[in-house]
Amino acid sequence: MNTTGPIERLMLELGRLPGIGGRSAARLAYYIIRQSPKSQRHSLARDLAAALMAVDEQVGLCERCFNLATETFCSICCDSRREARTICVVESVSDLRALEHAGSFAGHYHVLHGALSPLEGVGPEALKVEHLQARVAADAVQEVILALNTTLEGDTTALYLATALQASGVRVTRLASGVPHGGELEYLDRATLGRAMADRRLFATS
Amino acid sequence: MNTTGPIERLMLELGRLPGIGGRSAARLAYYIIRQSPKSQRHSLARDLAAALMAVDEQVGLCERCFNLATETFCSICCDSRREARTICVVESVSDLRALEHAGSFAGHYHVLHGALSPLEGVGPEALKVEHLQARVAADAVQEVILALNTTLEGDTTALYLATALQASGVRVTRLASGVPHGGELEYLDRATLGRAMADRRLFATS
Repeated sequence: MNTTGPIERLMLELGRLPGIGGRSAARLAYYIIRQSPKSQRHSLARDLAAALMAVDEQVGLCERCFNLATETFCSICCDSRREARTICVVESVSDLRALEHAGSFAGHYHVLHGALSPLEGVGPEALKVEHLQARVAADAVQEVILALNTTLEGDTTALYLATALQASGVRVTRLASGVPHGGELEYLDRATLGRAMADRRLFATS
Repeated sequence: MNTTGPIERLMLELGRLPGIGGRSAARLAYYIIRQSPKSQRHSLARDLAAALMAVDEQVGLCERCFNLATETFCSICCDSRREARTICVVESVSDLRALEHAGSFAGHYHVLHGALSPLEGVGPEALKVEHLQARVAADAVQEVILALNTTLEGDTTALYLATALQASGVRVTRLASGVPHGGELEYLDRATLGRAMADRRLFATS
């Protein structure tokens, strides 16, 4: 008789989440059970299960930009106040979210869901590059902003995309590189300082 | 039109878990969505939701010892190979699990689900002490081991329980205190060292 079945199973499933090891999974499972008394209508276990099922059933990818969406197109693609002729290319939905949180971009996106990585077997066909080229051609796009991570994979992907978009004649830009806000020069790496120096801009005093 | 509804809701529910802030909740939610492709029969979201519902529906408390149980009594209370006349009192199911993992105890348990804490309004009635006294009287219990945390609340609870059980004549013991395995004296606090010195034992050479 194995009466710990469902508890062990919950620990196992929680342990599949990133950054949650065996001990954390056990702690979370006990917490969830404590917060799920039989007598109450709302329990953490039921609420969390319902949220998971809702996501599983309702969330898919936007057919235009591959952002997460509950309809055919995502809320950004459906927003008529946004500028459709500027496309910002990001590696992940988390990156898109960070840019939206910053609130300094009001165009459309294109989510690659990855970056070129020969070591991990991610080639151009996985990143829906043809789809991006088709969008650029069809929607009279004027600018493609490459907002990729400044990693080896991100830089490689940016170079590949810039080359692939060259024929279309669209203006291709990338995010500025340099000293981050609040950054102390003393602690910055050589590559960042070198790029910040090379890309220095005129100091506006007015 | 709020198309991010289910995603934000999942982040909210994940954020209710201990140690998971807003940023972690977002990271986990995106991970879960990535691991839950529509095309596959098994998805992380569905598996986790099913595990949560199973726990919510099947797990309750053992009517004898208040350990987690999927039947009236828990697997430990139902195990006839275990010694029913020794009861180990613990504060939580996590503590019980740690002791079971250590494998050095083969008796029964009594889970208090807390410790006395006047500051947090936890009094003796919340810890089912009468239930423990009744078990000691009914099951001809010979020893009650107080395996409480060596905190202010744990020590207070141990003292309270020892006093409450005095009339029954049962032998009341507590876990040994001292230098933990792998502990370096240099880094131990005064209370631990003091207790280890006071409780020193004859060095067995045979």
